[in-house]
Amino acid sequence: MNDTRGLDKLPAMGGVHLAKGTRDFLPGTMIHRLRLVESVRSVFARFGFPPLETPALERIETLTGKYGQEGERLIFKILKRGAGAARGQADLALRYDLTVPLARVVALHPEILLPFKRSQIQPVWRADRPQKGRFREFWQCDADTVGTASRLADAECLAVLNACLEALGFREFTLRINHRQILSGLAAALGQAAREGELLTALDKLDRLGKDGVGRLLREKGFTPAHLARVWEWLERGGIPGTDGAEEELGSITRWAVEMGVPSRRIRLHRPLARGLDYYTGFVVEAEVDKPAVGAIGGGGRYDNLLGLFAGRRIPAVGVSLGLERVLAVMQETGMLEEVSSSTQVWVTIFSDETREASVRAARSFRDAGVATDLSLDGGKLAQQLKKADRRGIPHAIVVGPDEVAAGTVILRSLRQGEQWELSLDEAVKRVAGGQTA
Amino acid sequence: MNDTRGLDKLPAMGGVHLAKGTRDFLPGTMIHRLRLVESVRSVFARFGFPPLETPALERIETLTGKYGQEGERLIFKILKRGAGAARGQADLALRYDLTVPLARVVALHPEILLPFKRSQIQPVWRADRPQKGRFREFWQCDADTVGTASRLADAECLAVLNACLEALGFREFTLRINHRQILSGLAAALGQAAREGELLTALDKLDRLGKDGVGRLLREKGFTPAHLARVWEWLERGGIPGTDGAEEELGSITRWAVEMGVPSRRIRLHRPLARGLDYYTGFVVEAEVDKPAVGAIGGGGRYDNLLGLFAGRRIPAVGVSLGLERVLAVMQETGMLEEVSSSTQVWVTIFSDETREASVRAARSFRDAGVATDLSLDGGKLAQQLKKADRRGIPHAIVVGPDEVAAGTVILRSLRQGEQWELSLDEAVKRVAGGQTA
Repeated sequence: MNDTRGLDKLPAMGGVHLAKGTRDFLPGTMIHRLRLVESVRSVFARFGFPPLETPALERIETLTGKYGQEGERLIFKILKRGAGAARGQADLALRYDLTVPLARVVALHPEILLPFKRSQIQPVWRADRPQKGRFREFWQCDADTVGTASRLADAECLAVLNACLEALGFREFTLRINHRQILSGLAAALGQAAREGELLTALDKLDRLGKDGVGRLLREKGFTPAHLARVWEWLERGGIPGTDGAEEELGSITRWAVEMGVPSRRIRLHRPLARGLDYYTGFVVEAEVDKPAVGAIGGGGRYDNLLGLFAGRRIPAVGVSLGLERVLAVMQETGMLEEVSSSTQVWVTIFSDETREASVRAARSFRDAGVATDLSLDGGKLAQQLKKADRRGIPHAIVVGPDEVAAGTVILRSLRQGEQWELSLDEAVKRVAGGQTA
Repeated sequence: MNDTRGLDKLPAMGGVHLAKGTRDFLPGTMIHRLRLVESVRSVFARFGFPPLETPALERIETLTGKYGQEGERLIFKILKRGAGAARGQADLALRYDLTVPLARVVALHPEILLPFKRSQIQPVWRADRPQKGRFREFWQCDADTVGTASRLADAECLAVLNACLEALGFREFTLRINHRQILSGLAAALGQAAREGELLTALDKLDRLGKDGVGRLLREKGFTPAHLARVWEWLERGGIPGTDGAEEELGSITRWAVEMGVPSRRIRLHRPLARGLDYYTGFVVEAEVDKPAVGAIGGGGRYDNLLGLFAGRRIPAVGVSLGLERVLAVMQETGMLEEVSSSTQVWVTIFSDETREASVRAARSFRDAGVATDLSLDGGKLAQQLKKADRRGIPHAIVVGPDEVAAGTVILRSLRQGEQWELSLDEAVKRVAGGQTA
């Protein structure tokens, strides 16, 4: 940054705004975000998914052609520097999901041993129309296993999703599962294999639109009343020819997931589940919070054709993803987030110039003991300083006046309870560090 | 992502590349990056700098005009979506540093109480020419205090920088300090106030170019031999008229920093230090590793004119910054990074189809105890499975054959030492969780 010593003469720049669909996370919010990321990261690690990070910037050709026409429109593209900029050319783009970068990583790093398990917790960017709960910059928490068709890998996805939600404090949720080959089988049984996509998209909306709505959608797409009758019959009883293998696979994945610790009551076959017109090829899962009924907060499935895209050979893969924003919003709405007003525990006041040194030393002792401590930098009237601490939500204040300096003590004040104690500095540090006051 | 079920028929896409100047962080590297971030975050918290995060995307007008002509060229600009894209227009840009976003946050959130202390650990993007140790996407770790001119805030910057470096394991380093008003005073004393920038830029290179080199630079810029003589005299003895206040301020900041826990031997006045042709207005600091002599790894200073840029009033501020990449590179070069081949502790083999269930249950027990555990998903010959664990650097393997299933035991094998023990599952979990084997 260049010389800005003349800046104080500049007028205010009017109309400071955030970029549309983005947010600042002030400390009160960051505490929750960091805790949530830490919880998820720790569960991922326990299940053997160590962390990977990829750059926000990808070459534009890495991302184009991967997300369909609709998705392609939402990619943020970066203007070339130099002469290309004048011509409006783009050469880079912002990470749109964590899956295509994973495919690129696997192709680019032949030293990676398969099966490769990795977690990735990073923001992605989509130029979507911002709306309640939908942002242009948002975080995904993914865990994927690359390079094995083993059903144990699918089961681990259920287990890690279950463990993440438990770690975050969710208790009543369902892991809805399904198999894409059953849905393909249904389309084929209707003689509508070519319109499988339309069928799946409509079925995926069953929860929201109900049978009537989905029926209307399908009729608009040209499905006949006979088709619909077959679909409703299948929804109740299953039984599509040629899908026994897929049904058996779901049973086996469920059994292994239960062995891995998922309560069996939480796993439920949900026939219309397709997880979007997506890259999934087999098992799919969606985590649904039942109480309160807030809907899906994560999911995933098997995608055996995508990972080989860059590598030039077929590489099976399966994974799950949690959306940080969605999970936090649900936890917020349902009162699962503990009220934390400040991560700082102690506010050390400065009584006067003469006692400033004692206050600075007191702050040092708290910090040395690992207590998050703030110093009242500007001093001023003691009542004002205490008010500052209280407005910041800091639970404890320390006062060291001339009497305390003379006596070799400090006053520890609990701002929540209004109580205070005169103690040696060591004792005050011990009380706060030991959590014996707030 | 749209239907990609035909993808396996696609040929490999040749020439998969990373965007220039960016990197993938595979798990072995991520372990170190996460630990370092965690250390720094924890020190920042202790000193009362809670975390803030701002979006990667900023409106282009928020960033333009802030970084000088040279910096402006390095801003990554994002193409408008829709019709604007065709015209090559940009409306957004990528975060270039963490300071301008801080200024925007302070202006945009009137609810923020001053003084406002915040830390921010996030990547920034600059379209610089990539070279050894310089990337286009890199992380900064900043701690700043906004809204007070108190010298205690400057001293806290020294203290937090010192504590960060100590927490990372650095022992022999110097916090070089200086005051921009002394440098301004020098330029004025030479009658060269208008060329202060050129003088500072040259002096900042003294370490690298020596007196001869800096002298040559200054003569090229039109400084006379008499000017140079005055500069060299000042370098040795100081004594610029009208800078007593700044000298006294440095003394006072140093004294408070020592009270806050910085060993006094680590703080040293370094007269030529300017920290670039920058936004600093007062105290400046640079952390220099002495042993091994690898140069600066962080720094900061007071910048009383920048923060008010968006708010329309003068808001004093002071802060420090560590570059994650630079710190990691130095720690790597100097052998300060512990060799960690895998974060996963246990690899559970699958002896046969008949014993798979016992293996899955064993993996569950380790995971329930918080041990990072991987399951040998593909099974296969036992020797091959053990080799897989070894190649991944996982220290322990579990074998559950038919004999063990019958006996209700497992075999715990230390892959580093080659030893193995037949134990109950509980006992095996206890040994690994308690660190009694590796």
